[in-house]
Amino acid sequence: MNELFLLLIEIVGTVAFAISGIRLAAAKSFDWFGAYVVGLVTAIGGGTVRDLLLNTTPFWMVNGWYLAVTGLSLVTVLLLKKYLVKLDQTFFIFDTVGLALFVVIGIQKTLFFGYPMWVAIFMGTTTGALGGVLRDILINVEPLIFRKDVYGTACIAGGVIYWAIALVSDSVILQQSMCALTVILMRILAVRYNWSIPILRNYAE
Amino acid sequence: MNELFLLLIEIVGTVAFAISGIRLAAAKSFDWFGAYVVGLVTAIGGGTVRDLLLNTTPFWMVNGWYLAVTGLSLVTVLLLKKYLVKLDQTFFIFDTVGLALFVVIGIQKTLFFGYPMWVAIFMGTTTGALGGVLRDILINVEPLIFRKDVYGTACIAGGVIYWAIALVSDSVILQQSMCALTVILMRILAVRYNWSIPILRNYAE
Amino acid sequence: MNELFLLLIEIVGTVAFAISGIRLAAAKSFDWFGAYVVGLVTAIGGGTVRDLLLNTTPFWMVNGWYLAVTGLSLVTVLLLKKYLVKLDQTFFIFDTVGLALFVVIGIQKTLFFGYPMWVAIFMGTTTGALGGVLRDILINVEPLIFRKDVYGTACIAGGVIYWAIALVSDSVILQQSMCALTVILMRILAVRYNWSIPILRNYAE
Repeated sequence: MNELFLLLIEIVGTVAFAISGIRLAAAKSFDWFGAYVVGLVTAIGGGTVRDLLLNTTPFWMVNGWYLAVTGLSLVTVLLLKKYLVKLDQTFFIFDTVGLALFVVIGIQKTLFFGYPMWVAIFMGTTTGALGGVLRDILINVEPLIFRKDVYGTACIAGGVIYWAIALVSDSVILQQSMCALTVILMRILAVRYNWSIPILRNYAE
Repeated sequence: MNELFLLLIEIVGTVAFAISGIRLAAAKSFDWFGAYVVGLVTAIGGGTVRDLLLNTTPFWMVNGWYLAVTGLSLVTVLLLKKYLVKLDQTFFIFDTVGLALFVVIGIQKTLFFGYPMWVAIFMGTTTGALGGVLRDILINVEPLIFRKDVYGTACIAGGVIYWAIALVSDSVILQQSMCALTVILMRILAVRYNWSIPILRNYAE
Repeated sequence: MNELFLLLIEIVGTVAFAISGIRLAAAKSFDWFGAYVVGLVTAIGGGTVRDLLLNTTPFWMVNGWYLAVTGLSLVTVLLLKKYLVKLDQTFFIFDTVGLALFVVIGIQKTLFFGYPMWVAIFMGTTTGALGGVLRDILINVEPLIFRKDVYGTACIAGGVIYWAIALVSDSVILQQSMCALTVILMRILAVRYNWSIPILRNYAE
């Protein structure tokens, strides 16, 4: 029941990530194949790099539904594209909940392999945020999360909270839920109050 | 004798891929070093990512001729550049035959490691098509195969045919040759009849 | 004592690489998070790809100071940005000495894993030069080292000298110091006498 709930969130997050990639591919007039690839890289790119760094089999190679769900995301965009624009709020929630879960999964998996917490925070952030960077490289634009938003920083903050809770409590459930909550809250507050990370001003040339 | 034939095709394919990268690097006024790197990434990039995902030693690290053949491709372009333009038809054939072989190699190697057929199709497509995507990232343009051509789709179609034949026949030779034939035919028909994958229209903004 | 000296050079090189990435990120108006990521990829990207290809744990995952030093580099740029421009000469020296050491480390590690010398030269060049290529991909510009400079070629030259010395002497110290010296000399001479690798002229279109 608990596992089913987590699987459901993971599917929702994967769909949200894939659709974000497919929509940006559409804005670049990519064809269906290109859109599928961009959607897939957005959805599984972060976790794939994490698994390569951890020297373990990429998660989507042992379970076919990641590729299938990305295909369904493409079909959804094709069929419902007119209505999707009105659902931006909904997608933001899906994307944010998915992000939070991806961070938790990345941290958990890294700790499972025996790495210290700072590697786990790095991997949680990679799992959550790198897919979007790879997506932006594929569509040939400067990575969005390097210029606006607190996307990556929210992942790091979630990881630090995971760490802090782990210092005072052994409850993995507590660690994970506080981590996820931090990511979600920070994203929502950032959008609500227009937070952003300071820009590094150009000082040369 | 049979192995010699396959080796010959693999060299021809590697040269065709490398030259496609080197020519695009030339169009960007890269220097010889840059052109070599772009040519190399085009030729071995797809197979390298496949081998990293399969957690095995990248194929070109155990056999020096891939780097050497890329060097020869560069010398060829330097010496014969005036004549290469007239050979575009020939290169198309070399590139297509190479692509077909790369797809077959990718599928074969993945099945050898015990993965199911859908992973093998993914890896066949990666082996054939990812080098060109990495090439386009290096020369900083939107990946060509995401906007025109049926390049990636031909790889997938070849993989599906491999699968279909495998369901009815145990002959690996038959599976592989029908897969290669599908890739080659689809590429030729696509160019001849101007096939393309539908564009995903922009629906927002 | 000797190890301490090498560690010092490695830190200096890492800082020089990280700052080069952070300054280019600043020129693109990235935020602090983006600048950190670009600095980190510049500093550890080459060695990370090398370790993935060698199928070993990425070096920075077993020692936290690479991430920490990149953070210090960011703070340095934030605090001292006005003065950094005047230090371009100093940075060139740091960057060049760091590059030389990275090439030596890449060669050494690859030979340690039992690969032949040509793989080691490839990995030395990757360790030294790939970080800058990944940096340029992240900031969405054509890789600098593909169009000017003898950066990559200096790495290859250092590797060839390593090889040549190894043919006539068993002294690893001699092999490594001559390799490093070659990289440093070639970089300095290239800047002093304005050397560059010939451009591959566009011959089509």
